Amino acid sequence: MRVLIAGADGYLGWSLLLHLAARGYRVMGIDNGSRRERVRKVGSDSATPIASWEDRTKLALAHGADLLRADVATDPALIASDVDRFRPDAIVQFAEIPSAPYSMIPGREWEVQQNNLASTWSIMNAIRKHAPRCHLVKLGTMGEYGTPNLPIPEGYAEMLVVNRRVGSADWSQTDTVPFPRQPGSFYHASKVHGTINLALAAKTWGLACTDIQQGVVFGCETPEMNEPDLLTRLDFDEYFGTAINRFCCQSVIGHPITVYGKGGQTRGFLPLADSMQCIQLILENPAGAGEHRVINQIEATYSVRELARIVRREARNLGMPAEVAHIDNPRQEAEEHFYQVEAEKLRAMGYIPSTTVADEVRRMLITLAKYRDRIEKFRHVLVPQQHWSGEKIPCATT
Amino acid sequence: MRVLIAGADGYLGWSLLLHLAARGYRVMGIDNGSRRERVRKVGSDSATPIASWEDRTKLALAHGADLLRADVATDPALIASDVDRFRPDAIVQFAEIPSAPYSMIPGREWEVQQNNLASTWSIMNAIRKHAPRCHLVKLGTMGEYGTPNLPIPEGYAEMLVVNRRVGSADWSQTDTVPFPRQPGSFYHASKVHGTINLALAAKTWGLACTDIQQGVVFGCETPEMNEPDLLTRLDFDEYFGTAINRFCCQSVIGHPITVYGKGGQTRGFLPLADSMQCIQLILENPAGAGEHRVINQIEATYSVRELARIVRREARNLGMPAEVAHIDNPRQEAEEHFYQVEAEKLRAMGYIPSTTVADEVRRMLITLAKYRDRIEKFRHVLVPQQHWSGEKIPCATT
Repeated sequence: MRVLIAGADGYLGWSLLLHLAARGYRVMGIDNGSRRERVRKVGSDSATPIASWEDRTKLALAHGADLLRADVATDPALIASDVDRFRPDAIVQFAEIPSAPYSMIPGREWEVQQNNLASTWSIMNAIRKHAPRCHLVKLGTMGEYGTPNLPIPEGYAEMLVVNRRVGSADWSQTDTVPFPRQPGSFYHASKVHGTINLALAAKTWGLACTDIQQGVVFGCETPEMNEPDLLTRLDFDEYFGTAINRFCCQSVIGHPITVYGKGGQTRGFLPLADSMQCIQLILENPAGAGEHRVINQIEATYSVRELARIVRREARNLGMPAEVAHIDNPRQEAEEHFYQVEAEKLRAMGYIPSTTVADEVRRMLITLAKYRDRIEKFRHVLVPQQHWSGEKIPCATT
Repeated sequence: MRVLIAGADGYLGWSLLLHLAARGYRVMGIDNGSRRERVRKVGSDSATPIASWEDRTKLALAHGADLLRADVATDPALIASDVDRFRPDAIVQFAEIPSAPYSMIPGREWEVQQNNLASTWSIMNAIRKHAPRCHLVKLGTMGEYGTPNLPIPEGYAEMLVVNRRVGSADWSQTDTVPFPRQPGSFYHASKVHGTINLALAAKTWGLACTDIQQGVVFGCETPEMNEPDLLTRLDFDEYFGTAINRFCCQSVIGHPITVYGKGGQTRGFLPLADSMQCIQLILENPAGAGEHRVINQIEATYSVRELARIVRREARNLGMPAEVAHIDNPRQEAEEHFYQVEAEKLRAMGYIPSTTVADEVRRMLITLAKYRDRIEKFRHVLVPQQHWSGEKIPCATT
């Protein structure tokens, strides 16, 4: 199978390139290198010492894959010609700016939305023109749904309006509709925009697409990263770092594990290696022509508080003096809420979780301990300053 | 009250500028002139002989309003400085490309979405920075909802997932959620994107906004257009013309009234003068800080078939030899479907429909008959060629 990965230099993109190449897929990776640059601009760096772009292109070649420099969002003609030349069976769309807090910096909203929408348009139009049967696998996020007081189905559900007495309408009708999306940041909103466009392209163009509503991914290794040079990036700053990964980075340098507010925020999570397993299953079981298939890609749901405790326990077991600190929540979100998620489709394709959170956290702490000095150097990025209201002041311990 | 109208050179924008100026509002209109240009590029022109841009700026001044040339989407700094200088109490956002068929031309999708999203971002950021209490009145469309097999509430509703037996989730829960949006074109999708961004800005920034889900507007005059120079534009081409307006233009030149497919497509409609009445009511009854208020702005719902018959009858009453022809439907849409819409909020504010469809159609036919030659000149744009699947061939009579 021929797979084009857009955003192949990122956390998931590089991991997927190695994962698929090791399994005999013909892989072409594309990236504009912007993640490296944006992380530098917010004053941080990857905890893992990743290979330079030049070295990665060589490493990719050595593993039978191509890694090309191109901006998917701003160069649709180049992407179209790549698709025309490479004739992929599937394109995995990771070429989006993946940060909720970054999208809430005043003035950055449109940078995020424009990039994320334009990059998906480049890919959709390239597929339409040159490879109409190509399967588009787009990375969305579980955050598209927000935290409604309803269980979350996989994309669509039969629904009914209740307790409405207005006018002469017949409110007893039911219909299968897109489950309501309530994104909590302008980044999450950009992913909802993508979902809306995909559903419509499936309906009107016959595009075959899988819209992955992925939970928060954690972990810094897959079995393919068997030399230090092959490691994927791992961000821990307030913008590009995510919960478990940041907690582990904090623990290895003796920084308190910072939980935003009460920590009752519950989300779906998934280890990096399992994310790769799931995407491979999705590639092997493609959506049909005209199908907008939405898949909730998580292993299970956890509260942030619960995860902080797991990291503390595993860190202490390894002799690290870990503590949990609750700090002001820079986000605007419910800190205690109902959260139930349906995630059956991947199980039906054969997904079997490969590890537990505790085991994966332990593995991560051991690896990250080697890079303690790199993390220590950027200690100042571990406590957020950018509040989603627009203010910029460091979050205080509560 | 000080009102800034973005998109003040368009069909609704120019009408609103005159409507508000005549009622003592302090009005500043902004436009980039792109509607004139896009209609020319698709090979058509306004049926009404509208004043040139230069004349309109003078006419606006003579009516106590300003009309300025600026591109809201591409010049956010200029818009911000206009807002800073003018200090509007409300901004009416009409500066979007308002065409579903145009957005379905292969390669034009992103032009429409980029313009529509970027222009709203310019305005939202200008409000945030310089006029945080300013009321944003954004024009959305009833088409955001699509045609679900459910009555359509005003934006939000208490809902429930039914007939679901998967997993251990508690499917009996209800929650008030955004009513599912199912746009039928990339233009409609751009309006859904806007709705999502507005809801979020209300929640996180405290933006006060009204999101008008407007039906299809028809009619070519308001009482303020009491000289020919003051007329607003009226498009009848396949891209920028809408149902009733196109039917009337067809009738005055003896062209068959072209109904797409069966004509059972049912939508909400609203005369131009009532659209003005409603927007004024919305300005006088602003949303509160942090409120994302969604209003369904229609007079009533009609099937396209029904409207074609009304136009035929009124045209014949005026001695025009009108016929109804059914042609291939270039769109991908249900031609017979359930459609019930809740539209109570404007009634509660005092909206009283000022006319009937038949009366408005008769008035329009009389006015348009004066411009028969202008319409005749562009007879070739009256039958659509652009199919939403991407093909371009004239629609045949069925």
